[in-house]
Amino acid sequence: MITGTRAKLSVIVLQAFFQLFQVESVSFTPAWWVSAPCVFQSWFVKPYFNSFVTRTNTCGELRSAHVGQKVTLYGWVQYQRQGLFLVLRDFQGLTQIIIPQDEAHSHVKELLSNAPVESVVRVTGIVSSRPLGQENPKMPTGDIEVKAETAEILNSCKKLPFEIKDFIKKSEALRMQYRYLDLRSFRLQSNLRLRSQMVMRMREYLCNLHGFVDVETPTLFKRTPGGAKEFLVPSREAGKFYSLPQSPQQFKQLLMVGGLDRYFQVARCYRDEGSRPDRQPEFTQIDIEMSFVDRAGIQRLIEGLLQHSWPEERALIMTPFPSMTYEEALAEYGTDKPDTRFGMKIMDIGDVLRGSDIHFVQNALSYPHGSIKAICIPQGVVSDCSALGALRLFSASLLEAAGLALRDPTAFHFLWVVDFPLFLPKAKNPTELESAHHPFTAPHPSDASLLYSDPTKVRSQHYDLVLNGNEVGGGSIRIHSAEQQRFVLEKVLKEDSEVLSHLIEALEFGAPPHGGIALGKLLFLLNS
Amino acid sequence: MITGTRAKLSVIVLQAFFQLFQVESVSFTPAWWVSAPCVFQSWFVKPYFNSFVTRTNTCGELRSAHVGQKVTLYGWVQYQRQGLFLVLRDFQGLTQIIIPQDEAHSHVKELLSNAPVESVVRVTGIVSSRPLGQENPKMPTGDIEVKAETAEILNSCKKLPFEIKDFIKKSEALRMQYRYLDLRSFRLQSNLRLRSQMVMRMREYLCNLHGFVDVETPTLFKRTPGGAKEFLVPSREAGKFYSLPQSPQQFKQLLMVGGLDRYFQVARCYRDEGSRPDRQPEFTQIDIEMSFVDRAGIQRLIEGLLQHSWPEERALIMTPFPSMTYEEALAEYGTDKPDTRFGMKIMDIGDVLRGSDIHFVQNALSYPHGSIKAICIPQGVVSDCSALGALRLFSASLLEAAGLALRDPTAFHFLWVVDFPLFLPKAKNPTELESAHHPFTAPHPSDASLLYSDPTKVRSQHYDLVLNGNEVGGGSIRIHSAEQQRFVLEKVLKEDSEVLSHLIEALEFGAPPHGGIALGKLLFLLNS
Repeated sequence: MITGTRAKLSVIVLQAFFQLFQVESVSFTPAWWVSAPCVFQSWFVKPYFNSFVTRTNTCGELRSAHVGQKVTLYGWVQYQRQGLFLVLRDFQGLTQIIIPQDEAHSHVKELLSNAPVESVVRVTGIVSSRPLGQENPKMPTGDIEVKAETAEILNSCKKLPFEIKDFIKKSEALRMQYRYLDLRSFRLQSNLRLRSQMVMRMREYLCNLHGFVDVETPTLFKRTPGGAKEFLVPSREAGKFYSLPQSPQQFKQLLMVGGLDRYFQVARCYRDEGSRPDRQPEFTQIDIEMSFVDRAGIQRLIEGLLQHSWPEERALIMTPFPSMTYEEALAEYGTDKPDTRFGMKIMDIGDVLRGSDIHFVQNALSYPHGSIKAICIPQGVVSDCSALGALRLFSASLLEAAGLALRDPTAFHFLWVVDFPLFLPKAKNPTELESAHHPFTAPHPSDASLLYSDPTKVRSQHYDLVLNGNEVGGGSIRIHSAEQQRFVLEKVLKEDSEVLSHLIEALEFGAPPHGGIALGKLLFLLNS
Repeated sequence: MITGTRAKLSVIVLQAFFQLFQVESVSFTPAWWVSAPCVFQSWFVKPYFNSFVTRTNTCGELRSAHVGQKVTLYGWVQYQRQGLFLVLRDFQGLTQIIIPQDEAHSHVKELLSNAPVESVVRVTGIVSSRPLGQENPKMPTGDIEVKAETAEILNSCKKLPFEIKDFIKKSEALRMQYRYLDLRSFRLQSNLRLRSQMVMRMREYLCNLHGFVDVETPTLFKRTPGGAKEFLVPSREAGKFYSLPQSPQQFKQLLMVGGLDRYFQVARCYRDEGSRPDRQPEFTQIDIEMSFVDRAGIQRLIEGLLQHSWPEERALIMTPFPSMTYEEALAEYGTDKPDTRFGMKIMDIGDVLRGSDIHFVQNALSYPHGSIKAICIPQGVVSDCSALGALRLFSASLLEAAGLALRDPTAFHFLWVVDFPLFLPKAKNPTELESAHHPFTAPHPSDASLLYSDPTKVRSQHYDLVLNGNEVGGGSIRIHSAEQQRFVLEKVLKEDSEVLSHLIEALEFGAPPHGGIALGKLLFLLNS
């Protein structure tokens, strides 16, 4: 709680902070306001890992400045050598522990010399400088060692099914069976912590800086029409089922109708379509919805969100992100999620070849919309060049295998893809239309009248966020007119609008214009 | 992203902040570190609600200082009077809009005079002082009004099923059917926002200040033995089911074995036992687990967490919270979740009556452990006084109905209840034992040897957090020895330990001592 004195002091510092910024002639505008607190926060708040426990330090913390201090560490035995020293590990790092050799500490020597690898140990001792020449510059704690005075084996470890070292390849099945051992590796620890921190910074941006409200929506929901990929959950009433929703789409739209104005949720979603390496039956998305917003508003929000939360140790990301229409993406990259880290665009060379006498070329060009396209591959290592979009990526892989650095794995190329078609012909019956994304997507304002005359030509207000060739987010401005929503469902999609009557009715009771986005695979891609 | 200059400035301010505290002779200890950043943060970060949209202000924002400014507001028509003015509402408040009466603005007058209540409107106009004597001191924006210049009806509202006013009582069924209209009320808006802010501050405390890692654990899980109240989810494999877990208990223990050290999650949990006003099939708990911690450590953590996140407008909460043993709670309050806002404790008056010649008293006292107990009720309004624990609460209700202020509804009396029994006789078969809480609870260190000789006498390391007579949290120090866990399951509880073999095996691979807690009903109780 804020005591009077503390609150007063905070206000003083607040003023000092403003003054410093004014000296640097950074004006106090909302834009500044938006970016400043994050800077302060990331510098000011360093987690304190030793609160509420009796350890004095973590195993990654001790430096020369601690020499002479009595410390208590808790950790796992990484390895032990000949009863002389052992290395203790926790989530933050490694510390070398010197096992005492004198008679007075024979009990400590006995304990530590016989503790199996990965046993859990408490050690109390004195921080000392390592003898000259024995420092380890590769180890953050490599200047010191701890001379053990007392020790306790808190839990002994039986023989491991595999070694807990990052460079040791384990079978996937073994890693899954002993997931808790796998988690002790530096890589998985760091992935979990990176995810937690990044989501925390996203929350700060949305909640603290921009007034978004974190609302948890139910996951035991009624079935969505056409939601074939939903898990069903039998209820206590015979023959009645809940379903686990694929996204909180309907809930977040209803929250906008409820006047919430700015909603977000780190939302658990479910999709019953079997597991794949990049797709799991349950997954999480950063789910966002705003009232009174247009496409550009959502795009600036997301660019700011990613800049704010991007890990400091990764390559900087520049905003605004470039934007490309769906049509351009298909024409130049043969896909709606282009990897823009490298060129090799698809080019139309029909005009060049139109005068040639190559028979199959002339034949292809003779059809309506007939064209001949090509990709220019630098240093033509590959002789086969017979397809487009997917081939471009395949060629990149081949070129990289041959030693050409095409796609920088540390670069992050974000791209907006916009102006998707609102409807697509159904795969099974091309005379009927289905939503390119979902039936709540609003038509492009320039094409609104086409909705009633030629719906196949209507572009939507859907936008995808693409990162290095992966779709990492997608959203749209939604339909907020009950009449337009009913027309889309009944007349264009030929669906029974009754199953969505609760949503359509909500639109009739003063639904604000609104739109949103969901960020999905982003966190997955960031992990190393 | 942090630019060099900003980072440097932040460091300067950081030093200034320390110096201020040193002047006030508050030493720089971990305890201070823990509480200081929150103070700064709550003063520094104010959400900016108008980013990414074209409104200049919310409807709760304008004051005399804004007079003369041209503003754009978006909101819902709260009411409209005779074509002269209307009140516009959004999530932040109300603003009075003056409808122009001159010919040049006849279109605006036409629009605004005919907009049905709860229609969504954009208004641009000039902020003006209200005429002298027409200010409304009850309204935060009551000093000003906005003279509309342009307006747009963004969505018209059809006739409402009920008025959106807090004082109008609606039937529960109608409120649920039109939940999005109910959400527009001040009370529900404020509840949702309070919850979001409080959880955000909890996250700051856990993640930013104390290094807890937010880990999302799966909800499609295998069935827990004895988990009769779990929802089942059919998988794609015939005859195989997932279950939706009642808590992430097993996952968080495995994360500790994985060396995560400090875990938290705002965790969705499921319990298939039908709906009740204070219990729903899905609910959320603040789920916490730590390694190398004892009961006192968890208690101090939670006290700090609640102080940090407690809404500023509610009564202060004092720490440390008082603590009471299970035995004391039952003896003095007749319940393991005492409401300590009022006295009326149960007293043993056996000794006083032992010398009396009242037959039934003597009879009761003649049994082994026989006793006579009483409650002292002030100003004895109630003549019937025939039962204990529940009666105490019932008496309090009766006394309050008779006008006696016993339980302050604005007071928050937290209480730890500790030293629960580890096992209880099964209700259906009292010769067998079941876990008082769950089979992973560690025995009290003083009673550890009793586990093998007389398990009925063993107290546990379980702790409950009680607020005003409601259990709002519970947790324990867990068993971290595989041998002890196997003994409890097989020898005491007579259960098949095979179904928990994954957990027992994990304890064999260097599981650290660990414990945790889950806070459940807290948020529910805070809502007004």
